[in-house]
Amino acid sequence: MSVKVAIIMGSKSDLNVMQDAADVLKELGVDYEITVVSAHRTPERMFSYAKSAADRGLKVIIAGAGGAAHLPGMVASLTHLPVIGVPVKSSNSIDGWDSLLSILQMPNGIPVATVALNAAKNAGLLAAQILATADEYLAQNLINYKEDLKNKVEESAKQMKNEGYPSDFE
Amino acid sequence: MSVKVAIIMGSKSDLNVMQDAADVLKELGVDYEITVVSAHRTPERMFSYAKSAADRGLKVIIAGAGGAAHLPGMVASLTHLPVIGVPVKSSNSIDGWDSLLSILQMPNGIPVATVALNAAKNAGLLAAQILATADEYLAQNLINYKEDLKNKVEESAKQMKNEGYPSDFE
Amino acid sequence: MSVKVAIIMGSKSDLNVMQDAADVLKELGVDYEITVVSAHRTPERMFSYAKSAADRGLKVIIAGAGGAAHLPGMVASLTHLPVIGVPVKSSNSIDGWDSLLSILQMPNGIPVATVALNAAKNAGLLAAQILATADEYLAQNLINYKEDLKNKVEESAKQMKNEGYPSDFE
Amino acid sequence: MSVKVAIIMGSKSDLNVMQDAADVLKELGVDYEITVVSAHRTPERMFSYAKSAADRGLKVIIAGAGGAAHLPGMVASLTHLPVIGVPVKSSNSIDGWDSLLSILQMPNGIPVATVALNAAKNAGLLAAQILATADEYLAQNLINYKEDLKNKVEESAKQMKNEGYPSDFE
Amino acid sequence: MSVKVAIIMGSKSDLNVMQDAADVLKELGVDYEITVVSAHRTPERMFSYAKSAADRGLKVIIAGAGGAAHLPGMVASLTHLPVIGVPVKSSNSIDGWDSLLSILQMPNGIPVATVALNAAKNAGLLAAQILATADEYLAQNLINYKEDLKNKVEESAKQMKNEGYPSDFE
Amino acid sequence: MSVKVAIIMGSKSDLNVMQDAADVLKELGVDYEITVVSAHRTPERMFSYAKSAADRGLKVIIAGAGGAAHLPGMVASLTHLPVIGVPVKSSNSIDGWDSLLSILQMPNGIPVATVALNAAKNAGLLAAQILATADEYLAQNLINYKEDLKNKVEESAKQMKNEGYPSDFE
Amino acid sequence: MSVKVAIIMGSKSDLNVMQDAADVLKELGVDYEITVVSAHRTPERMFSYAKSAADRGLKVIIAGAGGAAHLPGMVASLTHLPVIGVPVKSSNSIDGWDSLLSILQMPNGIPVATVALNAAKNAGLLAAQILATADEYLAQNLINYKEDLKNKVEESAKQMKNEGYPSDFE
Amino acid sequence: MSVKVAIIMGSKSDLNVMQDAADVLKELGVDYEITVVSAHRTPERMFSYAKSAADRGLKVIIAGAGGAAHLPGMVASLTHLPVIGVPVKSSNSIDGWDSLLSILQMPNGIPVATVALNAAKNAGLLAAQILATADEYLAQNLINYKEDLKNKVEESAKQMKNEGYPSDFE
Repeated sequence: MSVKVAIIMGSKSDLNVMQDAADVLKELGVDYEITVVSAHRTPERMFSYAKSAADRGLKVIIAGAGGAAHLPGMVASLTHLPVIGVPVKSSNSIDGWDSLLSILQMPNGIPVATVALNAAKNAGLLAAQILATADEYLAQNLINYKEDLKNKVEESAKQMKNEGYPSDFE
Repeated sequence: MSVKVAIIMGSKSDLNVMQDAADVLKELGVDYEITVVSAHRTPERMFSYAKSAADRGLKVIIAGAGGAAHLPGMVASLTHLPVIGVPVKSSNSIDGWDSLLSILQMPNGIPVATVALNAAKNAGLLAAQILATADEYLAQNLINYKEDLKNKVEESAKQMKNEGYPSDFE
Repeated sequence: MSVKVAIIMGSKSDLNVMQDAADVLKELGVDYEITVVSAHRTPERMFSYAKSAADRGLKVIIAGAGGAAHLPGMVASLTHLPVIGVPVKSSNSIDGWDSLLSILQMPNGIPVATVALNAAKNAGLLAAQILATADEYLAQNLINYKEDLKNKVEESAKQMKNEGYPSDFE
Repeated sequence: MSVKVAIIMGSKSDLNVMQDAADVLKELGVDYEITVVSAHRTPERMFSYAKSAADRGLKVIIAGAGGAAHLPGMVASLTHLPVIGVPVKSSNSIDGWDSLLSILQMPNGIPVATVALNAAKNAGLLAAQILATADEYLAQNLINYKEDLKNKVEESAKQMKNEGYPSDFE
Repeated sequence: MSVKVAIIMGSKSDLNVMQDAADVLKELGVDYEITVVSAHRTPERMFSYAKSAADRGLKVIIAGAGGAAHLPGMVASLTHLPVIGVPVKSSNSIDGWDSLLSILQMPNGIPVATVALNAAKNAGLLAAQILATADEYLAQNLINYKEDLKNKVEESAKQMKNEGYPSDFE
Repeated sequence: MSVKVAIIMGSKSDLNVMQDAADVLKELGVDYEITVVSAHRTPERMFSYAKSAADRGLKVIIAGAGGAAHLPGMVASLTHLPVIGVPVKSSNSIDGWDSLLSILQMPNGIPVATVALNAAKNAGLLAAQILATADEYLAQNLINYKEDLKNKVEESAKQMKNEGYPSDFE
Repeated sequence: MSVKVAIIMGSKSDLNVMQDAADVLKELGVDYEITVVSAHRTPERMFSYAKSAADRGLKVIIAGAGGAAHLPGMVASLTHLPVIGVPVKSSNSIDGWDSLLSILQMPNGIPVATVALNAAKNAGLLAAQILATADEYLAQNLINYKEDLKNKVEESAKQMKNEGYPSDFE
Repeated sequence: MSVKVAIIMGSKSDLNVMQDAADVLKELGVDYEITVVSAHRTPERMFSYAKSAADRGLKVIIAGAGGAAHLPGMVASLTHLPVIGVPVKSSNSIDGWDSLLSILQMPNGIPVATVALNAAKNAGLLAAQILATADEYLAQNLINYKEDLKNKVEESAKQMKNEGYPSDFE
């Protein structure tokens, strides 16, 4: 199994958020690499990372950053691979609004597939969904994952009934 | 060439925005279908559309909606295919903030790949990038598309110099 | 006394907010059921819940959700019963703005009666007010409830005077 | 047929928005009255209007206002009837945010059923839904209304297909 | 010394904020009364309080409230006295935005003199400034108050210099 | 009749907004002066204007400004007179939010009595209310002004009834 | 006179805003160059422009961009020269908030000197102020420029007096 | 070494934020002075500080303030030196939005070089960048500073690899 998904972040302090992407990819059996690439402090590293990504066999890049978050958009400008942006609510962010808008509002020609604030797990799932468009086995894993989500809610509904919360439904 | 990308929208009045997705897919040689599916007015139609999408051979779904925009998220809840959400700044929207947040801020487990407000062109490009992860020819088209973007900027820089705007660069 | 009000929420973690609706309904003598229904994780459950609600004798549905909160609006699209939406300030929400806008800003044709952020108590009161339009006894309970609110404020004003806060009024 | 729904507004200049409530009530066969009541310029009129509403046989009050919009909340404080608030994006409003928040964010004990910005049509529908909890005939009218909404979307989808927009669905 | 300034608040829980107004008035030698008046829970009390205010000899009314804060605006609609509004960042407020906008954005004809979020001290000072327009002695107190503010900053600057923070100024 | 109210603005382009203050003062029989004083372009003029205001017999200062609006707050720092701030939605403003926050959010010790965005008429009324605390004749004018507002609304309600809008009230 | 200030923008469509920077620099006698450099469409051009800027003798770089505006921040990451960012309210921007936050909220280590929305004139002035820290002649030009601003306001005040607007000041 | 950079703040309570500016200037070998100057409580001190700044040999002024933050803009109006504004998220601020907008949104003619919320370190760096336009030695320090930033990120990437986080890059 070769590496297919890259997870990069502007600072190691974003790891507590971005680890969720790695965890869900592992759970779904998707190989990934994960490292620190800062658009602002290591622009050359970012350039060579993004420019070499397709040749190194990567298929999808997940990039997380906070504040004036330029990493996802700049990586997207340097590769034709799909880039998933994770707005991180970092300590220097204005409640996440800066992270969110500076990742989402990309100009025509250079999309970034943005997920919710701090939603690295969803970034991982989205990367898997993208790969699953050409991978039947992974598609089945995603179908099972959705089934699990459903079962947990239904169990939680049964549990509430058992705890005495009144409900006539089903 | 079979249909690979679906473009759906909550109302035909969103067509002036969503047509951009169709145009860029056509330009890149990607087949698409385009229709109206309303989460709120035709929930059954949405259900059957989303549930049957993978079996009908669709690979990616682009969904645009405005205001309390539930179409992209609900479709994402009903299929394992990647769903791209286009927040539409419709007439009943509060400057687009409602469209944007109700598409982007999906809970863990159900991602929507959100693009900028009204950025249907980028939704089309992102769909093509997703398909290109397993399609060398399409990948090359995207590389050429990026090259064209670059050339247009450089020509525009030259044009400014010719018009007398001073610049020593290059 | 048959069940008249449903209280549903996107996740059991919303129960600490939504319990207030149950408590005020109990206080006013209105029967309710309460359970978990997730628009995104259990869309089929949501469909059958909403579609069967009127036939099961429900009169009003209170639905709470956070983030990109689609539960109230989707339930409203699937039933002709009045739906009361409670925007929940959940942990994945941007200070509640996403919850609020994705519940409130419904398109023409599909209203959701939205209450304040986390205001499940007011959702319960509103459900009772709706039922009281055809229930004299319940209407009297609501009149008494308002009287109690008034008395508490007036007692609180007297208490302040007794504690030495100067006031010449009354 | 006695008057069941009141439509009031802070200023006659809100009539172009609030007329939508009257129109949809008429369409559904619900009797209404409509007049101007200003919380700030005619507080006594507001008091007597709200205090006498139940005795005059009204069942639901729709109140629209803009800016620091106090009419819906103050009427709700003066009656036990359900009050539906319509935030109006008036000329003196900050893009509607003031109207919206000063209607929606009512304290515990005094709910206002808030609809979207300028969504007077939805206020009318919600009033009808409330009355329909005790009126089978009106309930059927609402079911038909929803059916009409659905049919219009489906016709619009067919029309797009006829105009040459590609779609394989159905 | 007769009572000249009223301090009212929507709930006793606002007292920890509103006490600052009382304290600064006391410091400046201005007599005040302070009590709870809720626009939503005791509308009649609010009416009689506001309508009788001028006759009871009050000159200025300070009103604090949070969330959909209607107290300052409604009192202003019921009296010709100047009303100072204090937006309170209460627990049910959206970061104070609802409190602020529902007090500040009053329609033409009914002004509320709004101060900053939670700035009850400034409300007290403003009340004193208003009274001082016809009270030389109070005006002098305010001049002295400003002088004290200045002296504290200058002492703080000297203190920093003494603590070793470099500064050549003065 | 000596000058009692000053109306100043940061730029003559604000005159179309600020004229409303002059007009309502004239209507109420209050003498005023009106001129341009820019905090940023004429700081010395602002200093001498504010410092001399009380000695020149002024009682209240109305200051309007837009964008990073420092005029009201700086004038308030330089005089003990009450200062009324009018946030102007000027062309360089971000929908008025900057004007509003930079006038309203003054620190403890230096209040500015802020009115709604562009609400120069209310600033004039508030100035009159302030003067009326020591002027029975002006107080009566304000009472009459409020009476006129009420009458206009009631006439507008009667007019609607005459135009055929149904209403049983009164 | 060698080129000292660069003015770059993400798209030629920003020229109507950015021309103001050029005009004020010309007025102050500062040489500049002006061209199009897109962070997203011409990342290599941006890299070489920024990396070579100091060697080409540039002293200050003014960069304007809209939406997810990465140009100023990325240029700042690639040079030690001071970079002035102009948030442009472009057609694809959410009322300028995205432009503003994605330029201003730079992480520690990489400052961008941000000016107001569309304030290219101020960017030009700031560039001149920076150069004037080592240029007595330019400093004097700036002092004169400020004097002119003051004179224009004072003339405008005189003009108002001549037009009959009452004012006793001066 | 003479003093070149001034660091001023509206209140000593801002020192915990503003100290970062002093620290980075010290690290880069730039002399500074640091003191308290309040626009609102010590306007005369602010005037004389700003008016004398250039004559006292200062080259750049860093000014931090929170809430309705007028210090940076007023100092900029009183000197031709470049002024760097630091929006401070003080306790009386609305999540920093008031600080940010009242510093950034200066009118044409009077720029303030604004940095991110609480970003005093970046203010210090920007001051150094400004001085370095005429100081080769300081320019080299800044180049080294950037190199250090880069090295720290690269070491952090290596450390992650050593800790077992998978990465094929480099």
